Amino acid sequence: MVARGLSYRDAGVDLDASEAMHRLASRLLAGRREAYTSSIELGGYELVLHVDGVGTKTLVLERTGRMRVAGWDCVVMNTNDVACDAARPLALVDYIAMPRADERVFREVLEGVREAAEATGAALLGGETAVLPGLAGGVDVVCTVLAVREKGWRGNRAKPGDVLLGLESSGLHANGYSLARRIVEERLGGYDTVVESVRLGEELSKPVANYTAFLLEAWRRGLITAAAHVTGGAFTKVKRILPHGSAAVMEMPELPAIFRILMEAGRVEPREAYRVWNMGIGLVVAAPGDRAEEALSLAERMGHRAHLLGRVEEAEGEEPAVVLETMYGRIVY
Amino acid sequence: MVARGLSYRDAGVDLDASEAMHRLASRLLAGRREAYTSSIELGGYELVLHVDGVGTKTLVLERTGRMRVAGWDCVVMNTNDVACDAARPLALVDYIAMPRADERVFREVLEGVREAAEATGAALLGGETAVLPGLAGGVDVVCTVLAVREKGWRGNRAKPGDVLLGLESSGLHANGYSLARRIVEERLGGYDTVVESVRLGEELSKPVANYTAFLLEAWRRGLITAAAHVTGGAFTKVKRILPHGSAAVMEMPELPAIFRILMEAGRVEPREAYRVWNMGIGLVVAAPGDRAEEALSLAERMGHRAHLLGRVEEAEGEEPAVVLETMYGRIVY
Repeated sequence: MVARGLSYRDAGVDLDASEAMHRLASRLLAGRREAYTSSIELGGYELVLHVDGVGTKTLVLERTGRMRVAGWDCVVMNTNDVACDAARPLALVDYIAMPRADERVFREVLEGVREAAEATGAALLGGETAVLPGLAGGVDVVCTVLAVREKGWRGNRAKPGDVLLGLESSGLHANGYSLARRIVEERLGGYDTVVESVRLGEELSKPVANYTAFLLEAWRRGLITAAAHVTGGAFTKVKRILPHGSAAVMEMPELPAIFRILMEAGRVEPREAYRVWNMGIGLVVAAPGDRAEEALSLAERMGHRAHLLGRVEEAEGEEPAVVLETMYGRIVY
Repeated sequence: MVARGLSYRDAGVDLDASEAMHRLASRLLAGRREAYTSSIELGGYELVLHVDGVGTKTLVLERTGRMRVAGWDCVVMNTNDVACDAARPLALVDYIAMPRADERVFREVLEGVREAAEATGAALLGGETAVLPGLAGGVDVVCTVLAVREKGWRGNRAKPGDVLLGLESSGLHANGYSLARRIVEERLGGYDTVVESVRLGEELSKPVANYTAFLLEAWRRGLITAAAHVTGGAFTKVKRILPHGSAAVMEMPELPAIFRILMEAGRVEPREAYRVWNMGIGLVVAAPGDRAEEALSLAERMGHRAHLLGRVEEAEGEEPAVVLETMYGRIVY
C-alpha cells in the first residue's frame, strides 16, 4: 500500500474552517486594528492585548520531558506578535489547563513562563491553573500579553520597493504540530527516531525564537516598515503586511532538514507545507531599500541568522499575493 | 450498597493540590498584589490583567445547547473579579480550545462574549481559537480582561466592625462543576431529570450573575471597604479580604434547592460543599456600619437580591477565619 499524502485537514485541523471562524470574530473586534493586534487608547498610550497558546506541541513536550518549553513558548509567541505591531510587552498572565493536578508539570511550565517574562520584559501579573477532568485530554498552555505603544505609530504596512528580510526559526516553533505529530507517530516510528542525524523528539521540542528585542529596536530606529511573524497559516500571514496591489516575492533559503523529513515522510504537498510550517523562517520584516543592510546587521548582532529574501513588488489585483521561490518550484498564495 | 459521600477530590479535582500550585505561582508574581489581581503602573493608572475560564461547565452547556452562556461567563467571571479590586474593565481577549473546528459552537460562544463585553464595558480586542485534536476533549472557554484603576486606591481589605452583605448568585455560576456533573450524571439520572421542580440541566446552565456595575459604583461612592467574589474555593475566598486577627461571621440565608439536591444526592459533607459551591451567595462585600444600608439598597436598585449576613469581628490567631452559620450547623474555615 502506498502511503497517502497528508494535509493539515487529515490531521484534524481544517485551516479553511479556522479562517472562516477568524473572519467571523474579526467583525466583532473593537479598537485600532493592526496586522497582529488591536489596541485601545489610555492617556498618551495605545494598549494592546493579545492571546496565544502552544497548541498540541505540549503533547510532544510532555513525552520529551520539556514542558518548560511550553511556558517559554506561550509567552514568546505572544511577545513576537505584539512586537511585530511595535508594542512593548508590559505584563502577562498565563492559563494552564490539565486533566489532573500535576505539580511537576506545573512547576516546569511556570519556570518557562518566568524565564520568558524576564527575557521579554513583561511582568507576570497572574494566572489560572484549571484542573479539568473529562475536558482536558492533555496540558494546554496559553498566555495573554499586555503591551504598550506610544500614540502616533504609522502602522505595520510594507510598501512596494521595500526589501524583505527573513530571520531563521528554531525549528517548528509552536505551529503545525497536529500534522507533524501524526507524521512522526504514524510514519517515522515516534519521537526517539533519528533521521539524517535529526533526533525527532528533540527537534520538535525546541523553544520558539525570541524576536521581540530585535523588533522593538528595529522599530525604534526606523529600520523596518512592517513585520510578519510566521505562525498559524505560515507564509500566508505575510499578506497581512502588504498593501493592496502588491506582492511579496521571496526566494526561500535552504530548507532545514526537519521540514524536508516531515514533507517526505508525510508526502505533504509543498503548497500545504508552506502554509502550515515556517520552513526555517520565523519572521519576515520589510525594510526601506536604504535601511535593509542596517536591519540585517542589527539582526545578526542580536544573535539571529538573517537572510535577504526578496522585495515587495507592485502587482495586479486587489488582494496582495505572496510568491515563494522554493526548491519545489514557485508557490503563490 | 450505600452510596459513598462524594468530595471534590473524588470528582478529580484536588483543592489542596490546586492551592499548593497557587502558592507556588504567587511567589513569582510581580506588581501590586490585591485580593484578586495584581497591577502595574502606567502614567497615572494602575493596570490590572486577569484571566479565568469557565471550566467543565462547558461540558454541561454543550449538552443543553447553551454554549452562549460559556462566552458570557468567561467575561463576567473576570470582570466580577477585577471589580472586586475596584478596577474598571477596559478590554478583553477570549481563548477557545476545541477538539475540531465547530463553527456553530464558535458562533454561540462568541455571541455570549460580545453580549458580556457590552454589558461590562470591555472592548473585545482579539481572541484565539485553537483546534486541538488529541488535546482538547471538549470546548474550553477562557478570557483575559484588562482593567484600570486610578492610582491611590486604598485596597480590598475589610476591617473589624464592618458589616458583611451577600448578593445572591444565579445558580452554581462557573465553579464546582466537576463534582456537580458527577452527581447529576451518576446519581440523579442526568440533565433531563427534574427534582423538586428543578430541571437539572437548565439549572446548571444559568449564566453567572454580573456584579461588575454594582461593585464599581459601590467603590466609587465609598460604600464598601472590601469585596469577595465567591468562586473557586467558595467561602474560603472570603479570607482574602480579612485582616490578621479577624473573622467573618456570617449567617447564611436559606439554601437554594439545587445545592441541597446536589448535597443530598452526592452525600457531600457540608464543610466540603461550602468550599466548592457558592451556596446561593455569589458575592460578599464589607461595608462600614454607617454605609451598609446604602450599599444594600444600591444592590437592590441594581437588580440584585442582597442579604445582611453578619460582621467582621476581632478574633484570636494570625490567620483570619470564616465562620458560617448554616442549616447544617456552624462551619469554620
